[in-house]
Order: sequence, then C-alpha cells, then structure tokens
Amino acid sequence: MPAEISQKLHIQEEAWNTGNIDQFMSQAYWANDSLMFIGSQGLTFGYNQTLANYHKSYPSAEAMGQLTFDLLQWRPLGKSHGLLIGAWHLERGGEHSNLNGHFSLTWAYLNNDWVIIADHSS
Amino acid sequence: MPAEISQKLHIQEEAWNTGNIDQFMSQAYWANDSLMFIGSQGLTFGYNQTLANYHKSYPSAEAMGQLTFDLLQWRPLGKSHGLLIGAWHLERGGEHSNLNGHFSLTWAYLNNDWVIIADHSS
Repeated sequence: MPAEISQKLHIQEEAWNTGNIDQFMSQAYWANDSLMFIGSQGLTFGYNQTLANYHKSYPSAEAMGQLTFDLLQWRPLGKSHGLLIGAWHLERGGEHSNLNGHFSLTWAYLNNDWVIIADHSS
Repeated sequence: MPAEISQKLHIQEEAWNTGNIDQFMSQAYWANDSLMFIGSQGLTFGYNQTLANYHKSYPSAEAMGQLTFDLLQWRPLGKSHGLLIGAWHLERGGEHSNLNGHFSLTWAYLNNDWVIIADHSS
C-alpha cells in the first residue's frame, strides 16, 4: 500500500477520535460531486452529501466514539488505482452501542494525491 | 460499461433464477484463491470458499428466489479495471422474506476476460 494512504488513514482515525468529521473527510475523500458512498442507506453521490450524512449519523463526539481501522488487504488496480479492504470498529460509551463493520475503499491517484473515490461500508 | 460485463450479469441473473449457484459464480467471478467477498460475515478469500458460502446461505431454489440487478454506476479504473455499483433484489415466496441490498463489484480484465476480483455486498 502506498505510504501516503496509510498515513491518511491514521490521520483520519485521529480526526474522528477528536470529533472532527470535517477533517476526517477532507483528509482522504475525493472533493467531488462524483464521490460515491455505499452504506446502509444505499448509494450517495458527492462529497457534500456524504459529509452531511456523516454529521447526521454522528451528531456528537459521544456518538462518534473511538474509531480504529484494521487494514486487511490492499490490491493495486493498475498504476493509479487501488482497492483497500478493512474492518472498522467504533467503541462508544453511555447510551451508544459499539459498532463494527467492513469497508472497501477504492482509491485513485489524482493530481499527485491518493483519494477515496468510492467507499462501501457495511 | 463493457458489453461483456452487462452480458455476464444478465446470464448471472438467469443462472440464479434457475437455482444454479455454480453457474452464477462461474459466469463472472475470478476462479482464484485471491477472490475477495465482503458480506455480512466479513471478508472471505477464494472462489471455493465463496461458492461454499453461497450454497450454505441459499440451500434451495426457494431460498434463492428471483434475483434482479439494478446497475447504477460504472467507473473505469484505468484500462483494465472498473467498479460497478448496483442494487440487488431477491423476491422470495413462502417462509422466505424478500431481500434487498447494494453491491460494489471490482472487475479486472485478465486473460482477455472481465472477471469480478472483489465483491462487497450489503
């Protein structure tokens, strides 16, 4: 896996765990209307709508909890794309239950930068 | 989307709807130990294990029901890979409830053939 990607994921964890959804997204997601997010509500297009959904699903630092990623498998797809499979864990207190799932992140190398162009999380 | 891929998906639907899981898989999935399937049970490696899981989850034609795909978005990833996002619907009778979800299929063009190398379904 490109070092830049593992660094971005680490910064994403830190951003999430300090309650900063905006930084969590801007670190890694493609800032474009064609970004795709596939989650429990189906397919969402666009950076802004995906960000709005994150804010709605996680309205507080308590709801966000503490995020950790397990990186399970990286597959290069040609020279400028790659697929990262992993697991995510949210440890939360109070009224919020812990959550766990898996993600498939499709990365593209655009303008000298690796960005997530599609995220399927379940 | 390459015509070969839409053809394969159509044949997959027909295979599923006649209760033929083996043909459903052999039509489109990469026959390799590195195939990845991400579903409700997490990450599964390999064609044979993925096939075994399908047989376990859908032990009869009644459990399989009638499958339809909605193809929502195709993204080329360079020249020899692509990402297909879609929705799947299983209409079932009797004791089996209908099921719906979304899939992200990562395709690779290998040996003059498009095959699914990773499937995230939820």
